[in-house]
Amino acid sequence: MVEYLSDLEIANRSEIRPIQEIAEKAGIPKESVEPYGFYKAKINTQLIDAPVKGKVVLVTAMSPTPAGEGKSTVTVGLSDAFKKIGENVMVALREPSLGPVFGMKGGATGGGYAQVLPMEEINLHFNGDLHAITTANNALAAFIDNHIYQGNQLNIDPRRVTWKRVIDMNDRTLRQVVVGLGGPFKGVPREDGFDITVASEIMAVFCLSRDIKDLKENISKITIGFTYDRKPVTVKDLGVEGALTLILKDAIKPNLVQTIEGTPALIHGGPFANIAHGCNSIIATNTARQLADVVVTESGFGSDLGAEKFMDIKARRAGLEPSAIVVVATIRAMKMHGGVAKDELKAENVEAVKKGIVNLEKHLENLKQFGVEPVVALNAFVTDSEEEVNFVKQWCAERNIKIALTEVWEKGGEGGVELAKLVKEVMDTEQNFKPLYELELPVEEKIRKIVQDIYGGDDVVFTDSAKKQLKTIKDNGWDNYPVCMAKTQYSFTDDAKKLGRPAGFEITIRELIPKTGAGFIVALTGDIMTMPGLPKQPAALNMDIDENGNAVGLF
Amino acid sequence: MVEYLSDLEIANRSEIRPIQEIAEKAGIPKESVEPYGFYKAKINTQLIDAPVKGKVVLVTAMSPTPAGEGKSTVTVGLSDAFKKIGENVMVALREPSLGPVFGMKGGATGGGYAQVLPMEEINLHFNGDLHAITTANNALAAFIDNHIYQGNQLNIDPRRVTWKRVIDMNDRTLRQVVVGLGGPFKGVPREDGFDITVASEIMAVFCLSRDIKDLKENISKITIGFTYDRKPVTVKDLGVEGALTLILKDAIKPNLVQTIEGTPALIHGGPFANIAHGCNSIIATNTARQLADVVVTESGFGSDLGAEKFMDIKARRAGLEPSAIVVVATIRAMKMHGGVAKDELKAENVEAVKKGIVNLEKHLENLKQFGVEPVVALNAFVTDSEEEVNFVKQWCAERNIKIALTEVWEKGGEGGVELAKLVKEVMDTEQNFKPLYELELPVEEKIRKIVQDIYGGDDVVFTDSAKKQLKTIKDNGWDNYPVCMAKTQYSFTDDAKKLGRPAGFEITIRELIPKTGAGFIVALTGDIMTMPGLPKQPAALNMDIDENGNAVGLF
Repeated sequence: MVEYLSDLEIANRSEIRPIQEIAEKAGIPKESVEPYGFYKAKINTQLIDAPVKGKVVLVTAMSPTPAGEGKSTVTVGLSDAFKKIGENVMVALREPSLGPVFGMKGGATGGGYAQVLPMEEINLHFNGDLHAITTANNALAAFIDNHIYQGNQLNIDPRRVTWKRVIDMNDRTLRQVVVGLGGPFKGVPREDGFDITVASEIMAVFCLSRDIKDLKENISKITIGFTYDRKPVTVKDLGVEGALTLILKDAIKPNLVQTIEGTPALIHGGPFANIAHGCNSIIATNTARQLADVVVTESGFGSDLGAEKFMDIKARRAGLEPSAIVVVATIRAMKMHGGVAKDELKAENVEAVKKGIVNLEKHLENLKQFGVEPVVALNAFVTDSEEEVNFVKQWCAERNIKIALTEVWEKGGEGGVELAKLVKEVMDTEQNFKPLYELELPVEEKIRKIVQDIYGGDDVVFTDSAKKQLKTIKDNGWDNYPVCMAKTQYSFTDDAKKLGRPAGFEITIRELIPKTGAGFIVALTGDIMTMPGLPKQPAALNMDIDENGNAVGLF
Repeated sequence: MVEYLSDLEIANRSEIRPIQEIAEKAGIPKESVEPYGFYKAKINTQLIDAPVKGKVVLVTAMSPTPAGEGKSTVTVGLSDAFKKIGENVMVALREPSLGPVFGMKGGATGGGYAQVLPMEEINLHFNGDLHAITTANNALAAFIDNHIYQGNQLNIDPRRVTWKRVIDMNDRTLRQVVVGLGGPFKGVPREDGFDITVASEIMAVFCLSRDIKDLKENISKITIGFTYDRKPVTVKDLGVEGALTLILKDAIKPNLVQTIEGTPALIHGGPFANIAHGCNSIIATNTARQLADVVVTESGFGSDLGAEKFMDIKARRAGLEPSAIVVVATIRAMKMHGGVAKDELKAENVEAVKKGIVNLEKHLENLKQFGVEPVVALNAFVTDSEEEVNFVKQWCAERNIKIALTEVWEKGGEGGVELAKLVKEVMDTEQNFKPLYELELPVEEKIRKIVQDIYGGDDVVFTDSAKKQLKTIKDNGWDNYPVCMAKTQYSFTDDAKKLGRPAGFEITIRELIPKTGAGFIVALTGDIMTMPGLPKQPAALNMDIDENGNAVGLF
């Protein structure tokens, strides 16, 4: 009988080394390691002088299900496996948002014996980066409303302010609000709304800038709304790019932590992949590539969301080419995509796996379009039957697809050695990375290409207001920006309930939001919301502190 | 010709020691010092085992003016002066709110050669405490609205939710808002409003709790609103006190930094004294009293606000008795209270000083009511004339009041030695501290006593709605709580323009808000607002980063 511990229990029983020791082993100069507690540090990247040359392994997944596929777990475990086979490796991850922590049980730091530590701190405030981003976002909102209130010299139309406030919380009540009520001394009334912090353009700019100078330059280009005569108004017009950058001066330094097995991990920036672009900062990835030969990194949700944006937005911007791609798949997810309900996943059901594997098939086809050979990581769960696993292995073999069973949750890096070796084979073979589309394609066509080539849809439908926004985009010369699709993570369609590999569908674009600081156009599909809500029984109800002030019930 | 440097320039030219060195000299066990960068640390107070015995020196001031009196500067300089005369001393301060930083130029870390370091970090995010408090406050708001949305089992009346959201920003547009708009999937609409974080009851609870267990207990007692049948609803009813405490588990550890002269400083908690209770956390004060023989601490604004609340709320709760009180006064403030405009302060004007000294007189009378002898610190400015200074000295001598000219801004601790010696005389003499009122007095009478005995008013007027709230307070058994007055800092009255020592006035109580977690009743007077606004030309316009990512134009 195996004893199963919770992630928090495993984390608490693990040996954790002082962060200076991890930094030293990673070759980080001592004077650039700013400790935050004993086990976390911020890295002053200006003091690191080395070429950006490490190879990048991107971890993505099939369409996620409520069963949980363990993509972060595989990412962490794979980095530990690379260490085990003697590679100089670092892992680069997104930092968790506090919002979902209080909603659904489940952390963002891996699981079992493939975790980053200290998981409590990383899942709560970490080193304050998301708070700094929230602050910069809302300072800008306050500057905008103050400008309007104090005479509105720039002639900003309060009905056309596109800059929204944010909060790092799942709070549906703030989705749509009216601010500035209460008379002439309480501001100018207007409609407004709050997004979750991970959807803030400040978060996107933060993740897509190369250094603090670039960050300031990009912030200055943010469009906050339009004048009464429909001219875009930027942060530069308001003159507050310096102050906003100042708010981010410490946050912009990437955060160093460690895996349970002592692999150095940089965790920095955390946009969601359903409503934002979904990968950690370019600064963290580049720093890891300066320090290590192999950098394992993940993109959010399935390949249709995080990976597509990794390729078309981040990789293009950073000038990086992934050397290998790992697709995390699970028997459970295939069963759900094959029609099985969540509470029936424990029973063997080879037929459902056969039916649901089409979801994986589509993800693999998608990734090949980017010119890099995908490797399947079949992440093992105790409920998987031998026959189910063998079917998937056979299916891959018939298609000449590399696959490894991954047991990093139970065994740590040791459980990922086979995967690491397969990934290394790909890394050592020349790949032909290319983005899905050229930037010169009009925004409308970029979206159509993503919908048809990646989602497998027939066509894209633009609402009337989206059509007007397309015109605004053209008129202002923003048509060459890449597109950041906002779509449910559960389906290739814009309907979360259509699992598997749907066909014969259209995607509706409800709204297009130009993010001229981040340098992309957000396309909202279906009923996707940029502010989540809490469930009826939030995870918060089980959270507590013990006598010593330590976390209880966090995960 | 003397060269004058900005506070930031002086700070940057000062030698700063590694925080571990400061901690060691202060007798703090190594394992309890959690570094945040090289020059800041959080202190795990559970590892400090010593009696709470250090003597407390409270620094307060006459009614502040836009000229700036330098209370924090004197507080820091006095602690350095105590060090110079061989005392084992620590200074305990409030942490700055980000909100005002972007509004008016001016930091909260002292000035000249009497500053705490690193001033940039302390004035920006510091170690994240205010962000954690904001998060806990807004998590509670999200839990409340989610409860209502998900069926409202507790029968909460959305029109009677008293818990407001907060943001650490001067943002008048959020004072009065409507949330939950947009249809059935975006929540239940209701009127709401945002306060600045320093006015949050979480901030008050944070500052008035003895340890993390006490914090959780107090959070559970917070009243968030009323049911349809007018019963109070608490955090305990919602079951989220554990989660809210968890959010604060690191913030609750006090922050160690150093003065320019290497005196250890604990900076922790920062409620404003005009809209909240205005002093640093009990945990920080108690920890400093465990480590040092003399603890210099300040309360916000004039003695009518911060000091009164220090005595009647904090000291009572902490079971501490101040051993001495310092009243910071300036020639410039006396001139303004004597009717001189801000841009005419440079010219000698003994008559105005004579006229305006009545403001200081009233503060001194007030402080004597608490049974402790006040010492006047006349904080020197270059524009003071000899005759002006001599008049004030003479005035004090005639009344047998101890006074020292303080030159800590220009000279650091050396400029405060005379003051430190006078304060030590008082500390070595037995004082007879007592709060202004007994808790058994009804809330109405407590307010009347403060208005008459401290403000010098004739009487107090309650609006109709305040009268109804008095009844609610009685009905719910909250009449024994102390009162936290929210009043303009510029005047003894509720009208910011009435300077000097006004007489023959009434104070209007507009609203009474029971804070059952903090354990006090907030009384809003006049048109005081719990959310400030930004000025026409915010200080943010001058802020920037340099090539190396360091702050420019912060102060």
